Amino acid sequence: MSHLSRLSLNQATIKYADLATALSVTAGAGIDAIGLWREPVAAVGPAQAARMVADSGLRVSSLCRGGFFTASSPDLRREALDDNRRAIDEIATLAQAGAPGSAPVLVLVAGGLPEGDRDLAAARGRAAEAVGELAEHAAGVGVVLAVEPMHPLYAADRGVISTLGQALDLVADLPAPVAGVVVDTFHVWWDPALPAQIARAGAQGRIASYQVSDWITPFPGDALLSRGMMGDGHIDFASFTRLVRQAGYTGDIEVEIFNQEIWDADPGQVAARTAKAFGESIGPGL
Amino acid sequence: MSHLSRLSLNQATIKYADLATALSVTAGAGIDAIGLWREPVAAVGPAQAARMVADSGLRVSSLCRGGFFTASSPDLRREALDDNRRAIDEIATLAQAGAPGSAPVLVLVAGGLPEGDRDLAAARGRAAEAVGELAEHAAGVGVVLAVEPMHPLYAADRGVISTLGQALDLVADLPAPVAGVVVDTFHVWWDPALPAQIARAGAQGRIASYQVSDWITPFPGDALLSRGMMGDGHIDFASFTRLVRQAGYTGDIEVEIFNQEIWDADPGQVAARTAKAFGESIGPGL
Repeated sequence: MSHLSRLSLNQATIKYADLATALSVTAGAGIDAIGLWREPVAAVGPAQAARMVADSGLRVSSLCRGGFFTASSPDLRREALDDNRRAIDEIATLAQAGAPGSAPVLVLVAGGLPEGDRDLAAARGRAAEAVGELAEHAAGVGVVLAVEPMHPLYAADRGVISTLGQALDLVADLPAPVAGVVVDTFHVWWDPALPAQIARAGAQGRIASYQVSDWITPFPGDALLSRGMMGDGHIDFASFTRLVRQAGYTGDIEVEIFNQEIWDADPGQVAARTAKAFGESIGPGL
Repeated sequence: MSHLSRLSLNQATIKYADLATALSVTAGAGIDAIGLWREPVAAVGPAQAARMVADSGLRVSSLCRGGFFTASSPDLRREALDDNRRAIDEIATLAQAGAPGSAPVLVLVAGGLPEGDRDLAAARGRAAEAVGELAEHAAGVGVVLAVEPMHPLYAADRGVISTLGQALDLVADLPAPVAGVVVDTFHVWWDPALPAQIARAGAQGRIASYQVSDWITPFPGDALLSRGMMGDGHIDFASFTRLVRQAGYTGDIEVEIFNQEIWDADPGQVAARTAKAFGESIGPGL
């Protein structure tokens, strides 16, 4: 059971469960931590969500997600930054309400190219600037901004930060306790520079979150729902997890799976299945 | 019309046309070069294909494709190498039959992970070894082995070489006239290291082929048919082409599009549409 103590169930894996259900099935499956999403938190309000989290006895491992700040219009940009400041406050509150060991980590997805805009380098530059602009607010409430490199598959329409190395470059000028990176197996497993970049992330104290899900084939029709349960695909989780462990990461490991079949299943059964797969696939690397 | 003189129509763009049709619609659209595929060449036999190419007056810009040599079984590995030697001989003959300026370039797609195998690093190692083993045969008939980095989307099931930098590392120990790389916009456009790696490829004399197609969204249901005509998606072809030009590449530029809608259209119309899109999207970078 010691491996299971590192497991956090990310709410996206049981997307259709409301917050109360998510908390109860997580605890019910013997899982000690949960990764929260803003939408189900907003559905009850952040203050009520914090009380529910406190009552659950679970740790909070992160809040998904801020970001989406690649807009070129100043108005849209300001809106995005304001919304991110609210997200920072939310995770500060939620992590405080969670059990000891909770992590005040806000996962940031950069966003894609604006409509009709083909300047990828400029969009990447705006993402970097936005993280810099949020740093002071995050530092003020003790929140870690965690930049998530996304699979190059999403570079056009979702996340212009495509590699771990690029994410580390992006946060390099900010203090490590304020800005880190998310290491997500689905997004970066293919990267030939992975061992070096995970070691670099660890040495710089930048691994703010470790998320796992599998790369499955044939590639599903909906590119956003293409992740699988660990063991169902091609990723060598034991080796990957060993790299993250050797880099010094000791925090929670979130299982975050976007998959219609898993979403359609009973959330309690998904939580149980997640715990089993975690033990089998991630356990050997811990 | 000077820009059009650099255009080569890759047969994959008009997949359902036989070799005779492909040659005639290419010439009919005012295009001077064609990128051949092994299957339509095999359908008439390599000797007859060479005669047809000679009669067409077109240049041959490459043959697609060899590779698929990541198998771990020695028998499958030997079969793959033998087949690649045949492909090398085919492109040597076809390029000789083509108009002056034809390029004896064999495009190599590494292949994916063997069934049930999750060791990506080992598969990459086998791909590198295989290219090394083919080098002598290629050198003997004056053929360039062109390693194509594929989009990370295909790392599991099609091509374990995922970045231009990785492809350049793979061929680094072989002489430049024998082993180069394919720069394909669809596969590498997202790479933050792109400008540096294209410059590196050029400085080392390694750009054996430049292929273009667009990245379109929403991502189509079939991951293998997800490319678009230049201008229909998110890639900045003028900037990309400028990088390739500045790196010293002066060869043909192949339009290679896997797209069901384009395949279903009349090949003559596709050739004409390709020439128009080439002028509009690639022309400004030349």
